[in-house]
Amino acid sequence: MTTLELVSPPDLKKAMAKTAEEIEEIIGELIPPSTLTEAVIFDSMRYGSLGGGKRLRPFLVITSSDLFGVNHECALRVAAAIELVHCYSLIHDDLPAMDNADLRRGRLTVHKKYDDAVAVLAGDGLLTYAFEILADPATHEDPHVRCKLVTALAKGAGAHGMVGGQMLDLIAEHQPFDIGAITRLQRLKTGELIAFSCEAGAILGRASPQQHHALHAYAHDLGLAFQIVDDLLDHEGSEAQTGKSVGRDAAAGKATFVSILGAERARAQAALLVEQAARHLDIFEDRAELLKAVARFVLERRT
Amino acid sequence: MTTLELVSPPDLKKAMAKTAEEIEEIIGELIPPSTLTEAVIFDSMRYGSLGGGKRLRPFLVITSSDLFGVNHECALRVAAAIELVHCYSLIHDDLPAMDNADLRRGRLTVHKKYDDAVAVLAGDGLLTYAFEILADPATHEDPHVRCKLVTALAKGAGAHGMVGGQMLDLIAEHQPFDIGAITRLQRLKTGELIAFSCEAGAILGRASPQQHHALHAYAHDLGLAFQIVDDLLDHEGSEAQTGKSVGRDAAAGKATFVSILGAERARAQAALLVEQAARHLDIFEDRAELLKAVARFVLERRT
Repeated sequence: MTTLELVSPPDLKKAMAKTAEEIEEIIGELIPPSTLTEAVIFDSMRYGSLGGGKRLRPFLVITSSDLFGVNHECALRVAAAIELVHCYSLIHDDLPAMDNADLRRGRLTVHKKYDDAVAVLAGDGLLTYAFEILADPATHEDPHVRCKLVTALAKGAGAHGMVGGQMLDLIAEHQPFDIGAITRLQRLKTGELIAFSCEAGAILGRASPQQHHALHAYAHDLGLAFQIVDDLLDHEGSEAQTGKSVGRDAAAGKATFVSILGAERARAQAALLVEQAARHLDIFEDRAELLKAVARFVLERRT
Repeated sequence: MTTLELVSPPDLKKAMAKTAEEIEEIIGELIPPSTLTEAVIFDSMRYGSLGGGKRLRPFLVITSSDLFGVNHECALRVAAAIELVHCYSLIHDDLPAMDNADLRRGRLTVHKKYDDAVAVLAGDGLLTYAFEILADPATHEDPHVRCKLVTALAKGAGAHGMVGGQMLDLIAEHQPFDIGAITRLQRLKTGELIAFSCEAGAILGRASPQQHHALHAYAHDLGLAFQIVDDLLDHEGSEAQTGKSVGRDAAAGKATFVSILGAERARAQAALLVEQAARHLDIFEDRAELLKAVARFVLERRT
C-alpha cells in the first residue's frame, strides 16, 4: 500500500523513539524516588516500569490522540497509565507462580531483583496508580472523559479482558486449545489493552462513533498480528535477540499460533491482519499514516 | 457517652447484619458465576469476596452516606467496590510470598482453595473491577463525584496507602519498629481504606469541608483502634474464635501495638481512640449515633 510507504521507517523509528523517551521521563516524574522507610515499593515500581520496552501502547495512545488534535500532555499521561498497567501485568506474569521468568527486557525480572512479595506489591501499586492518573483533572478537564477512560481501562485490563486472558493462558497449559480458543485467549490477554491504547485517543478526542469503531477494528487486527509475531519470535528467536526467555510455550507444550498453523501460515496470517488493520484507517485519509506504519513495524519487528 | 447508648447493641447488630446481607447480594450480582472457559477467574473472585467477614467497610460507607441522604443503591455499589479492594488485599496478603496463611474467615484461603497463580489473578481482577464499578454512571450521575471516588480509592489503596502499608509490614519483619513507625504502618495498611469508607459517604453526599474533615478524623481514630484490637485478638485469641491463623506476628518477632505497649495499655489506648473518634462526630448531633456505636463495636469485637 502506498500509504504505508509515505512514512518511511526512519520517521517511524524517530517518532517511536521520541515517545519512548517522553514516557521514560513522565513515568520517572510520576513515580519519583523515595526516601521513606517503604522506599522499596517505589524503587520496585520504577524498576518494573522504567528503562525499556518498545512502548508500543504509549505510541498508539499518542498517535491516535494526534488524529484528533488532543493536547500532548494529556495524551502522555494516559499513555503512561496504560504502560504502567502493561508493566504491572508483566511483573505478575513473570512471578514463579505464573510464568516463572528470570529475565525481561534483558534484565532481571522484578521478583528476581527484589523478591516475590515485593513483586506482588509493585504490580498492585502500578495498577492502582494507573487509575489515579486517569481520574486526575490534569489528564482531562472533562470528568466525563476521565470516567470513560477509567471504565475502558478497567474493562480492558480486568477479568473480562487481560486478567481473563492470563487465566486462559494458565488453562492452556493443561488443556488443548484450537485456533479459535487461542485467538480469543490472545485477544483478551494482549488485544484488549492494545485496543484501549487506540481507543484512548478516540475518547480523549471525543471521536465520532464511526471513528471510534475504525480505531477499535484497527487495534483488534493489530493486536492479533502482534501476538502472532510474538509466537513466531518465541519459536525462532534467541534470548540474545528478544532479551527474554524463549521457547517456553513450546517447552510447556502450550498451543500457539505457530504450533497450530505452522510458521509459514502464521506469518502469512499476520501479514493479512496488518493489511486489514491499515484498511480500517482509510476514513482518516492521509492523517493515519503513522498508525499504518506501526502496523507494518509490528509485522517486521525482531524483538 | 449517652449518644453511644442511644443505639442499643441489638440495633447495631441488626443494621450490620442487614448491610452484610446486602453486600453479599450485590457482590453476587456484580460477579455472576460464569460458564466461560476461564470461569475459574470468576469463581475465585467470588470465593474470595463472598461468604463472610464483618463487612465493616461497607457498613461505614452506608452509614456515612445515610448522614447525607445518599441514594441507597449508589452507596451500596461504592460499599461493594471498597469491599472488593479489601478482599483483593487479603487474597494477595495471604499468598505464600507474603503472610503464607492457609485460613481466612474459617475457610481455606484462595491460593489454598485454587493455587497461587489463580490467587494473584483473582486479586488483580477484584482490584480492577472496583474501579470499573466506581466509574460506572450507575454509581452516581455526576462524573465529578465518580472521579473523586476513583481518586480517593486509588490513593487509599495504592503505594501511598494500603500497598505502602503492606510493604512496611514486610519490612517490619526484619527491622525494629517503634510505636510511631507501627502507627504509621497501620494507618497506611488498614487506616486509609477505612478512612475512605467514611469519606465515600461525604463524597457521595457532597459534604461540606467541615463535615468531610469530621468523618476523616473519626475514621482515622477508628482505624487505629481497630488495628490495636486486631493485635490484641492476635495476642489473646484462638484460631477457633477468629477463624484465621493467630499469633503469627509474635511468632515472626514482628513488633505490634501489644508487644510495644503491653496488652493493658494497648486496650486503654484503643478505648481512648474510640472515645475520641465519637467526639469528632458531634457536629452531626444525634444523626451519627450508628457511627458512634460502630466505634464501640470495634472496641468490643471478639473476632
